[in-house]
Amino acid sequence: LKSSLGPKLYLALTHYPVVNKEGECIASAVTPIDLHDMARAARTYGARKLYVITPLVDQQALVGRILAHWTQGAGAAYNPARRQALELVRLVADLAAAEDQIAARHGLAPITVATCARRIDGCRGYSEMRRRLADGRPHLIIFGTAWGLAPNLLSGADYVLAPVQGATDYNHLSVRSAAAVILDRLTGVASDRR
Amino acid sequence: LKSSLGPKLYLALTHYPVVNKEGECIASAVTPIDLHDMARAARTYGARKLYVITPLVDQQALVGRILAHWTQGAGAAYNPARRQALELVRLVADLAAAEDQIAARHGLAPITVATCARRIDGCRGYSEMRRRLADGRPHLIIFGTAWGLAPNLLSGADYVLAPVQGATDYNHLSVRSAAAVILDRLTGVASDRR
Repeated sequence: LKSSLGPKLYLALTHYPVVNKEGECIASAVTPIDLHDMARAARTYGARKLYVITPLVDQQALVGRILAHWTQGAGAAYNPARRQALELVRLVADLAAAEDQIAARHGLAPITVATCARRIDGCRGYSEMRRRLADGRPHLIIFGTAWGLAPNLLSGADYVLAPVQGATDYNHLSVRSAAAVILDRLTGVASDRR
Repeated sequence: LKSSLGPKLYLALTHYPVVNKEGECIASAVTPIDLHDMARAARTYGARKLYVITPLVDQQALVGRILAHWTQGAGAAYNPARRQALELVRLVADLAAAEDQIAARHGLAPITVATCARRIDGCRGYSEMRRRLADGRPHLIIFGTAWGLAPNLLSGADYVLAPVQGATDYNHLSVRSAAAVILDRLTGVASDRR
């Protein structure tokens, strides 16, 4: 597993601040399958950590139980491949804590890249971000739950990535699916993707 | 939603025949989130139907309840985008029934394309399959649950698609993530994927 080679890529799955269906800022509940699917995609595409962000103490406890089961408990023995994935997950209370951990590791604050299902003015395409990832600086790709990242988080990020557009105007992938597609576009082996 | 243009693409999610961890042929249980995520990806990438295959009567009842809730029940009113996705799902008892429905619609049996996380001798790359999809014939991409499609299903398909390879040797994406990546590679808008 060549996670120490390749881009210094980090992922964050944000449960606060995100918006609900009415556009109000909320803290969403953790969906356990998000952790599994995104950790498996992170491991597949060589991301170094997946930060799961929630300030809610009961939700932090839920994440802790899931991680303990799959990295140390019965799940780790039953499915070692799942253990290798979930070992990448780190629980933090807010985005700043994730940025601090990355900065401490590399001596350099990460470039933050927010994702959004809508097309934001000034958003960046995949070839540009793929090139930027190769520049050696750590990058943190930020995914939202519920109806997406809160506006202040989008405007505070260094870059916003262009939305994943399929063959239609329909644009409602799950965050699990969108994260896998985005990782494939940003870090997939070009010869394999052809 | 341009589902009547573009390739005649169909998806199947197979719960029998698949193999378990020991390689034995089994019928797996339906995972409700598979239906949601794969239907959302199918709608995004312009696939025409998602066939959910299970011969088990209790599992068929579960699928029926999920579809009723999201296409006609309270879920349809709550989330119309989810309704549009789950309307693509068809429940069938076996792969032959899915092939028959496609053949009846187009007057032409579909080309069957099996997927596998392992690299099978003679498997086809994405550019080749992307080109074949454009030839006008209906194609049915077959996904397995549990530890993957049974050997007889793999050997009986017209083609086997190359596995999704990320930036590492780790190859344990969820079927939900793999399906989204495969659809993006086969049907994603080239200019958007760059």
